[in-house]
Amino acid sequence: MEFKISRAFIEQIEHLIQENKAHELEVLLQDIHFADIAEIMNDLQDEQAIYIFNLLDSEKTAEILLELDEEVREVILRSLSAKEIAEELDELDTDDAADIIAELPQKKKAEVISELEDVEHAKDIVDLLRYDENTAGGIMAKELVKVNENWNVLTCVKEMRLQAENVTRVHSIYVVDDEDRLKGRLSLKDLLTTSTKTQISEVFIKKVDYVKVDTKDVEVARIMQKYDLEAIPVIDELGRLVGRITIDDIVDIIKEEADKDYQLAAGISQDVEADDSILELTKARLPWLVLALFGGFISVRVLGIFEPAMENHPTLFLFTPLIAAMGGNVGVQSSAIIVQGLANNTITGSIINRLIKEFSLSLMNGAFLSGILILVCHFVFGFDYSIGITVSIALLSVIIFASLIGTFIPIILDKYGVDPALATGPFITTSNDIMGILIYFTIAKAILGF
Amino acid sequence: MEFKISRAFIEQIEHLIQENKAHELEVLLQDIHFADIAEIMNDLQDEQAIYIFNLLDSEKTAEILLELDEEVREVILRSLSAKEIAEELDELDTDDAADIIAELPQKKKAEVISELEDVEHAKDIVDLLRYDENTAGGIMAKELVKVNENWNVLTCVKEMRLQAENVTRVHSIYVVDDEDRLKGRLSLKDLLTTSTKTQISEVFIKKVDYVKVDTKDVEVARIMQKYDLEAIPVIDELGRLVGRITIDDIVDIIKEEADKDYQLAAGISQDVEADDSILELTKARLPWLVLALFGGFISVRVLGIFEPAMENHPTLFLFTPLIAAMGGNVGVQSSAIIVQGLANNTITGSIINRLIKEFSLSLMNGAFLSGILILVCHFVFGFDYSIGITVSIALLSVIIFASLIGTFIPIILDKYGVDPALATGPFITTSNDIMGILIYFTIAKAILGF
Repeated sequence: MEFKISRAFIEQIEHLIQENKAHELEVLLQDIHFADIAEIMNDLQDEQAIYIFNLLDSEKTAEILLELDEEVREVILRSLSAKEIAEELDELDTDDAADIIAELPQKKKAEVISELEDVEHAKDIVDLLRYDENTAGGIMAKELVKVNENWNVLTCVKEMRLQAENVTRVHSIYVVDDEDRLKGRLSLKDLLTTSTKTQISEVFIKKVDYVKVDTKDVEVARIMQKYDLEAIPVIDELGRLVGRITIDDIVDIIKEEADKDYQLAAGISQDVEADDSILELTKARLPWLVLALFGGFISVRVLGIFEPAMENHPTLFLFTPLIAAMGGNVGVQSSAIIVQGLANNTITGSIINRLIKEFSLSLMNGAFLSGILILVCHFVFGFDYSIGITVSIALLSVIIFASLIGTFIPIILDKYGVDPALATGPFITTSNDIMGILIYFTIAKAILGF
Repeated sequence: MEFKISRAFIEQIEHLIQENKAHELEVLLQDIHFADIAEIMNDLQDEQAIYIFNLLDSEKTAEILLELDEEVREVILRSLSAKEIAEELDELDTDDAADIIAELPQKKKAEVISELEDVEHAKDIVDLLRYDENTAGGIMAKELVKVNENWNVLTCVKEMRLQAENVTRVHSIYVVDDEDRLKGRLSLKDLLTTSTKTQISEVFIKKVDYVKVDTKDVEVARIMQKYDLEAIPVIDELGRLVGRITIDDIVDIIKEEADKDYQLAAGISQDVEADDSILELTKARLPWLVLALFGGFISVRVLGIFEPAMENHPTLFLFTPLIAAMGGNVGVQSSAIIVQGLANNTITGSIINRLIKEFSLSLMNGAFLSGILILVCHFVFGFDYSIGITVSIALLSVIIFASLIGTFIPIILDKYGVDPALATGPFITTSNDIMGILIYFTIAKAILGF
């Protein structure tokens, strides 16, 4: 069912823009979904994207604005007057409108707000701008359907019809008291199946899940996912119903959070995409590489300590990359499991138990891998047994050490409120490289006595 | 609002089970959400979990079954007769019931199906079992609200009330023709705001998104996310409406997909969690470590080729871990960006353009890092300039090479239908280790002439 955007289609559009064939473009884009038009605009030159945007009517353009890549949106917004932007925002839900306003420069922000036509809408948007973007307040919308517990069903249905006009998707009908405090909910299904003569206070469900305005967005996502909710009401400090969060906002947060952990594990420190500029990609990647390089300098120094052994035991130095790599791999595995467990809230039990489990695991894996190593060293490489035994004891120690560090550091970071995903990727591989080499040669020195 | 499961609470439950205080347990668990009870049961011993399960009524237990960890669910299901399982399944939506049946051993499967009371429900479940679990057919539910285009609104509302009884959440009302072919939809909002005297064929929206039964689940997730859909109808080969997929099923797929890419990048090949058994964790981790170890053996061999240079240029060998690590880090960064781009469908343009971009990026980053390296080698380490220049040329080459390989391999794998995430993590770091060392010493040999 999906419309596939082909290279040829984009070229056709570019051609029509060049020829200034506005009408043909309008016809061509008429039946195309706004999400697809946004994707096409992301691929066009700035002026071409602006040309397309000006061609379409404001119902479609408002939705397109939301779907565009941030850089392209900025280009479009810069090309519009405050009044034009306000017209777009009047088409949008309060949460989406607030997100776009938040991206504007300070001066334009005030201008746009003053140009908003619908006063209620404007008030709601200004209200939303007060909240931190990573909290329930920052992602909620003001649009919702609520009824007073003291109404009867007739009043209620009449009021709901009015309210539903402004709400894209009705999920739940919330019940409040005279002070606007959240009391419960009416399900849509009840609405379809209950006689219209019933009293609200008699039929509403008193149990209702909710979050507070200052609940963290990832926590909201976790709660909605765990309890399988499609919408959740948001209350303020006084228990008053102030907004509603729907599952589609949460999908983005879940995806972003998972992507961010992955990027950090790969040594990418900002949310970048393959299509971002080289400068942005460099900003996200270079810092981690510099960190890794300085870690590398330390490994040079550590190896330097043992350089004198090169004369009598040159073979030992052939194994340094192997030892370092195994330490890095094991550390990344351990930390990834902990980071995901912390993100999904499945880490239970004490740190000690966790470390004991990881110790047993790495002892088993390490013993197996060291066994292979001894055999290969002797039978394939034909090295002296003393080398095989030395390297394999070192390998076992490094594997155990790396897995304990990989487990311990994310847990500790999390405990002190630091994102545990920072401890994965380059950080853990680099520190395990250094420690691995140190452990390796210390053990070698003890056994071979150089 | 969320109920926090404390260690003390679990101990209290364990104590009550030991004392066989069934009534007190019932009271204690009465107001606790099934998702929380499932979480508690995941933490208990097998017999304790079974004890709790038998205590609760089937409306709650059916939902709990769905939320349990797979191993715990297996334990519970083994403790139940076919008739008891069928009773649980009668409480569930068809898609969830089918998922649970799919986990049963072959023989029990048939027994359970024959014990299902609701014949319609049983037919729907058997129908769902035919589809591959990773397709739209495998994740859809049979529960939906549909009306015939030839009905008038009165018949329609009456029919809908009946149908809505079986549907947990009404999202859209689908419109079909006499052959059950999907024609369009009615929005719930229209239902709330349209006069009841209107004719269906006059009001329904002819444009409707849909997927086919054999569409891949990740593709369904992508479409629903892109077009911001909360539910999507599923049609068969003849265009007949056969089921419906809702956003909550998709949330799990999106999360799983992102988590899987992350795990592969960390060298974990199965979907494991921190709480899984040591054996399962080993099965997921050891294969990658064995791969890395054999990669390590190759690096030993490659280094061995250049061992004779150890006598005259021992300093060179101090840099092998640094070169290998930098190659690995750059490769992981490049491949992660490509893998995420492929997952999010944001990779456009030709491979050549992609490689040229990556080349420019790595040339910039590499030149900067090599510059630091020359300075540190000379001014901090006090090595000869020839060493600094040799190592930094090698570093630049390895960075460029690693980033090109990290970009190229995932794109090629994806082109041939292999999961590109396989090319991240241990695979890319190990191969870059080996190639890095080879490039390094080949360049060193050319410059220093040993």
